[in-house]
Amino acid sequence: MMRKFVSDRAGRNIILVRSFHHLKQLLQRPLSATQSRFLSSTVLDSTSSMASSNSSAPPVNLDTINPKVLKCEYAVRGEIVTLAQTLQQELQSKPGSHPFDEILYCNIGNPQSLGQEPITFFREVLSLCDHPAILDRSETQGLFSADAVERAWQILDQIPGRATGAYSHSQGIKGLRDTIAAGIEARDGFPADPNDIFLTDGASPAVHAMMQLLIRSEKDGILCPIPQYPLYSASIALHGGTLVPYYLDEATGWGLEVSELEKQLDNAKSKGVIVRALVVINPGNPTGQVLAEENQRGIVEFCKKERLVLLADEVYQENVYVPEKTFHSFKKISRSLGYGEEDLSLVSFQSVSKGFYGECGKRGGYMEVTGFNADVREQIYKMASVNLCSNISGQILASLVMSPPKVGDESYESFSAEKEGILASLARRAKALEDAFNNLEGVSCNKAEGAMYLFPRIYLPQKAIKAAEAVDIAPDAFYCRRLLNATGIVVVPGSGFGQVPGTWHFRCTILPQEDKIPAIVSRLTDFHQGFMDEFRD
Amino acid sequence: MMRKFVSDRAGRNIILVRSFHHLKQLLQRPLSATQSRFLSSTVLDSTSSMASSNSSAPPVNLDTINPKVLKCEYAVRGEIVTLAQTLQQELQSKPGSHPFDEILYCNIGNPQSLGQEPITFFREVLSLCDHPAILDRSETQGLFSADAVERAWQILDQIPGRATGAYSHSQGIKGLRDTIAAGIEARDGFPADPNDIFLTDGASPAVHAMMQLLIRSEKDGILCPIPQYPLYSASIALHGGTLVPYYLDEATGWGLEVSELEKQLDNAKSKGVIVRALVVINPGNPTGQVLAEENQRGIVEFCKKERLVLLADEVYQENVYVPEKTFHSFKKISRSLGYGEEDLSLVSFQSVSKGFYGECGKRGGYMEVTGFNADVREQIYKMASVNLCSNISGQILASLVMSPPKVGDESYESFSAEKEGILASLARRAKALEDAFNNLEGVSCNKAEGAMYLFPRIYLPQKAIKAAEAVDIAPDAFYCRRLLNATGIVVVPGSGFGQVPGTWHFRCTILPQEDKIPAIVSRLTDFHQGFMDEFRD
Repeated sequence: MMRKFVSDRAGRNIILVRSFHHLKQLLQRPLSATQSRFLSSTVLDSTSSMASSNSSAPPVNLDTINPKVLKCEYAVRGEIVTLAQTLQQELQSKPGSHPFDEILYCNIGNPQSLGQEPITFFREVLSLCDHPAILDRSETQGLFSADAVERAWQILDQIPGRATGAYSHSQGIKGLRDTIAAGIEARDGFPADPNDIFLTDGASPAVHAMMQLLIRSEKDGILCPIPQYPLYSASIALHGGTLVPYYLDEATGWGLEVSELEKQLDNAKSKGVIVRALVVINPGNPTGQVLAEENQRGIVEFCKKERLVLLADEVYQENVYVPEKTFHSFKKISRSLGYGEEDLSLVSFQSVSKGFYGECGKRGGYMEVTGFNADVREQIYKMASVNLCSNISGQILASLVMSPPKVGDESYESFSAEKEGILASLARRAKALEDAFNNLEGVSCNKAEGAMYLFPRIYLPQKAIKAAEAVDIAPDAFYCRRLLNATGIVVVPGSGFGQVPGTWHFRCTILPQEDKIPAIVSRLTDFHQGFMDEFRD
Repeated sequence: MMRKFVSDRAGRNIILVRSFHHLKQLLQRPLSATQSRFLSSTVLDSTSSMASSNSSAPPVNLDTINPKVLKCEYAVRGEIVTLAQTLQQELQSKPGSHPFDEILYCNIGNPQSLGQEPITFFREVLSLCDHPAILDRSETQGLFSADAVERAWQILDQIPGRATGAYSHSQGIKGLRDTIAAGIEARDGFPADPNDIFLTDGASPAVHAMMQLLIRSEKDGILCPIPQYPLYSASIALHGGTLVPYYLDEATGWGLEVSELEKQLDNAKSKGVIVRALVVINPGNPTGQVLAEENQRGIVEFCKKERLVLLADEVYQENVYVPEKTFHSFKKISRSLGYGEEDLSLVSFQSVSKGFYGECGKRGGYMEVTGFNADVREQIYKMASVNLCSNISGQILASLVMSPPKVGDESYESFSAEKEGILASLARRAKALEDAFNNLEGVSCNKAEGAMYLFPRIYLPQKAIKAAEAVDIAPDAFYCRRLLNATGIVVVPGSGFGQVPGTWHFRCTILPQEDKIPAIVSRLTDFHQGFMDEFRD
């Protein structure tokens, strides 16, 4: 930008712009420090006519759509996945056309797509709530567990008119919010208020809502971890804000240092960015680390001191695989420090898509909103009301997730067996893949303490980097594409999540079923060895 | 704006701005024609430092949230509904505390909240898909109809891995889109492409997506009917665009005249607004009219000529109550005029919340996107992918709605009886309420040819208008509040939808169950008579 600047007779800097639209475009990009200084004493000279903006409507094309949409990127379902879908179609129409017979989607935390079975009790209750007419029938006793029938009745009684097909209160059905608040209290040991709960279609719409609330222009910044789950970068781009990166330290197991937060905050301020909020993903996505309690206390103190909204992505709260780490919600940490509503604006995101249940397709979730003024809360409610309500099955499931069967319930034993079976298997899969990555030449991989991902670093040979540059793609995307074409394994290049410049990674889920892990490890190892043989410097 | 303008020695106009932020604020407002002319040869002079925007983060309050959120309004769940909820709580805690014993929510098209039963076949299929484990069990044969079991199997076979708990393709499950496309073809007699279908959590997120795509700034306008369903005004406000109103003609049964569209388009252009799209709601909300085919042809020609995207809200396509009118989709009209992909950009919105099924809580729906460039389509897909997918139960229900039981299926007769029963009853209720409104002194009400609403006009006495002004609320809101307090009936003031200035209306759904209509009519009539006795000029 600013290629056309001149000085006028008074010695002022002048930027020549082609049009009003052009001027606005210039102003919509983030400014470098030099550009900011230049602008601080600048005159903008628009010499051309504005009349062009009054001309007849342009057709819809990439030049005329919202540039924020263009800017938005979401690697988890990006080009690599499109390529995978093409390969899958080719495998179907021409079996044997590739050196593998199935595509293994390790790009996304979507457990049931890879064969994970749903939790029986949850599905029983959903099924009964979808068709309450069968609740009284004798056949139902044979098909469903007694506590599922009882829970379905309880839930139906919480819904006005037992109408599971009606729009609910825009925050979600009050009785279900009571259940969720009770679940949060049981988890944290601190009170939770059902009026703080906003039920949402998964966590993503909740994140969008907070970005929409907080971001006024590209001068508003949101501190986000790098690497980050690209929903955050996408949502910030769509809402026209600025992502202020802070780097997780790979050398200390993706450590989150408060000193790094302070440094990046100061850096953003010096560029004129007003930082509104801090995003923390715990357990980490794509990085899999689980924060230590002391570390969380430091983060809370930092947000309090700097008056930042703490956006706590806690959707992997049930996914912790190492005995030395425990999940603590940021609300628990904040309350245990003695901080209340006035001290910290905190939003905690939870989802039915993750945990041991992995009910991605149900699109259920909630945010717990604490520490906001009543009038701001009213605005959040208004935004929710424009979309009427989240889907009722997702609402019901969110309540089940926060209040599963208890000791003594008919389903308790089978529920616990399903839950423990899935979590133990995930831990084994995480370890097997971590070991496999660490056995590869020029690859190092931190432990997945939690969440559903590994994020190995690949030390790519210069020759591979040059080969990638020659075809104009990022070196890690080059690696991932080659991996997919050779093995059918879909992973996401680190560049989609952000990484320290000059380092290369990819994200791989730990979700393929256990009996497939040996084959994956062997295909991956063979591919990697061949890749290194081809490109080793 | 532009209070500080001067001329420099070269004779150029200069606008003095306080800060970079100030300059951007100026540029974010719509410009008058004079201002546009002025700007066409303007120099913008920023003399103050940019440092002020570097100050520490402000707390979150109404001054620091996104002003677009503040600007957004959604009357359907606005103040009157909050008051109704308070009254309902008072009735529960203190029975007899009000002159009525229940709140009748006529504010929102939410049929099942008022006792409408769901369609059995739809719920059977949803229930089975939620818990496929019971499909093979013998008890299931006794509980579910055979064709529901068969349909559930069909649907499960369309889902990769039969995983109803997995994220689907971001446009929705391909097999379900095939079913929907076939349903559209059967409805219209013209081809439909499953790749044009984007399944969504109800129609609202689809409308938001199109607004997000099309609106770049407040210079972009969207032509909307007045009165309109306030999702449109809310979404345009949230995305920072300009609502360009066109008025429906109450005198001709809420007629939509192309001459009015032309007039308002020209008017908008003269103000420097670039009109991107035309919203048409057919059947109308809140107005209930069903467009004549010839009228629709004129609208298509207008959009084609003016290169406007036609956003066709067709969620009430099953809700037509008069024999002389038939629903025609805009896609059918466009194709029957011989227009194809290159001629018209058209988006049709459909929802499972309306029709005879009224499954609002399921949050299912789709948009059919035709006439967009491949690269723009890719951007729409990318936006969908950021949110992963819509909820699978809603997706399944959308496919059922577009492909209900057919002659010969076990459920066909009971399904048809349920469907016809609901639609015939809605027609009777619409007529009864219309007659009741027209019998009131100073009230006139057009026929509800379709949709779920009546929008009577009330000729309020001057004395009532003054009384409303004295308490600083709109006269129609004053009337609706008095009605609620006296009768428990919740309707939405016309000012929430827009109306010709100086006219007053309210929107009342036709959804209370039939046995309640006589009591409603009598309470309404008594209230109105008392109101007129109090305020008659």
